[in-house]
Amino acid sequence: MVDLKERCLRLTVAYDGTGYHGFQRQLNGMTVQQRLEEALETLAGHPVRIAGAARTDAGVHASGQVVTFRLRAGVPTNRIASALQGVLPADILAIEADEVDELFHARFSARGKTYQYRILNQEIGDPLRRHQVWHVRRHLDVNAMQSAVAMLLGENDFSSFQASGSSAKHPIRRLFEASCSRQEDELRFLFHGNGFLYHMVRIIVGTVVDVGVGKNSLEEFKRIFLARDRKCAGNTAPPQGLCLLKVFYSDNGDLPGSP
Amino acid sequence: MVDLKERCLRLTVAYDGTGYHGFQRQLNGMTVQQRLEEALETLAGHPVRIAGAARTDAGVHASGQVVTFRLRAGVPTNRIASALQGVLPADILAIEADEVDELFHARFSARGKTYQYRILNQEIGDPLRRHQVWHVRRHLDVNAMQSAVAMLLGENDFSSFQASGSSAKHPIRRLFEASCSRQEDELRFLFHGNGFLYHMVRIIVGTVVDVGVGKNSLEEFKRIFLARDRKCAGNTAPPQGLCLLKVFYSDNGDLPGSP
Repeated sequence: MVDLKERCLRLTVAYDGTGYHGFQRQLNGMTVQQRLEEALETLAGHPVRIAGAARTDAGVHASGQVVTFRLRAGVPTNRIASALQGVLPADILAIEADEVDELFHARFSARGKTYQYRILNQEIGDPLRRHQVWHVRRHLDVNAMQSAVAMLLGENDFSSFQASGSSAKHPIRRLFEASCSRQEDELRFLFHGNGFLYHMVRIIVGTVVDVGVGKNSLEEFKRIFLARDRKCAGNTAPPQGLCLLKVFYSDNGDLPGSP
Repeated sequence: MVDLKERCLRLTVAYDGTGYHGFQRQLNGMTVQQRLEEALETLAGHPVRIAGAARTDAGVHASGQVVTFRLRAGVPTNRIASALQGVLPADILAIEADEVDELFHARFSARGKTYQYRILNQEIGDPLRRHQVWHVRRHLDVNAMQSAVAMLLGENDFSSFQASGSSAKHPIRRLFEASCSRQEDELRFLFHGNGFLYHMVRIIVGTVVDVGVGKNSLEEFKRIFLARDRKCAGNTAPPQGLCLLKVFYSDNGDLPGSP
């Protein structure tokens, strides 16, 4: 038997989070992490433990999640993604693998992330998109929502938009860009930031929608933001509208709006 | 017990066809028709048999399928859709009901239909859209495909694009408009016609993709079309890219391109 050299690898994956209890491995219920680790073990013949850039919740999707792990396997690095595709289920896609330094870590080496949140904003729902959008029937004032989102730019204390149960050391995060725009029958939010607190995007979206329907004014939204108190903010928007688009490192492009 | 008057109703429905063995009721496997009939029976307390405008295949979707049926129920017509929503599963949406003449028939009264077909045309797939697009990795020449599709306009014999097992009396259909355009990472086909043969859109798309990848020239495509022989045409494109967008009657708008 050949003694294979251990490689430190970074793998970009996309997944439909509908059928999973979130990204992170847990005892009760199948997770994306478990599926990926099982596929890697099938490939390598040894147990593999992966680290993910973001611990997406149940029902949340990713088109550019990043995981790192160590692997001893004969498969060349540029073939890892397609080899994995043979053993992964259809709702997880391995996109691309490359070799990284052993100090590189999917989560701790990340400089930032981009999240998208989609709202279907019309009277009639859409069964085809029910797992990918939050259906909001009431008319939403996009201009007001865009103004609300713009208040969050820069380095701020996001305590009002952080769910309890967070393991974050402090609630300060920097948003480089944040937008809300109408695209046909959908409203789409984009958030580019150096990091995100637990449920941060979903609580922001839920609170911004309160502005969009006219329940809260922009001034009230500002007060909520400055209160640094989760109890002041709106409901947490449902998970299915959220998608992790990209994780940024020092070597894979510039975060929109970052210095 | 009140003796309820029987109404003839037309109901517009949308559905995600992923989990169904097609629209039409069958012995082996759940269909959209069966789910709708069960929901209507729950509502009315008597068995209901529906007629659908189109018998979509397994995996094919609809955003504007139309069904007609007779109902004796206390629910006012303008509340039928929302009442049904309470008993229908999440992958079927009742949009709107109205009363029609007893001679009105979802299928036989239809003047035309619009179908959409979506192709994801890039190297990387998308787990989120896997049930809604055909993933074609090879570069597709949209201009050539648009030219191919344009040849089909007008009244023609579509025998080359008809699967066996069809119950159609003749293979002549009229396409009022047909287009193929790129929208971000997708190619989208739209077909507006007075009627469609069994698998017609999917065989057209499969054959047009042969033009898009350069396997067939436009001249060869024309030859295939004129041959009136299914064996000359390309493969049937997979079902999940297809969606019935709208059924046209004399009272609900003009079919694009129709005289």
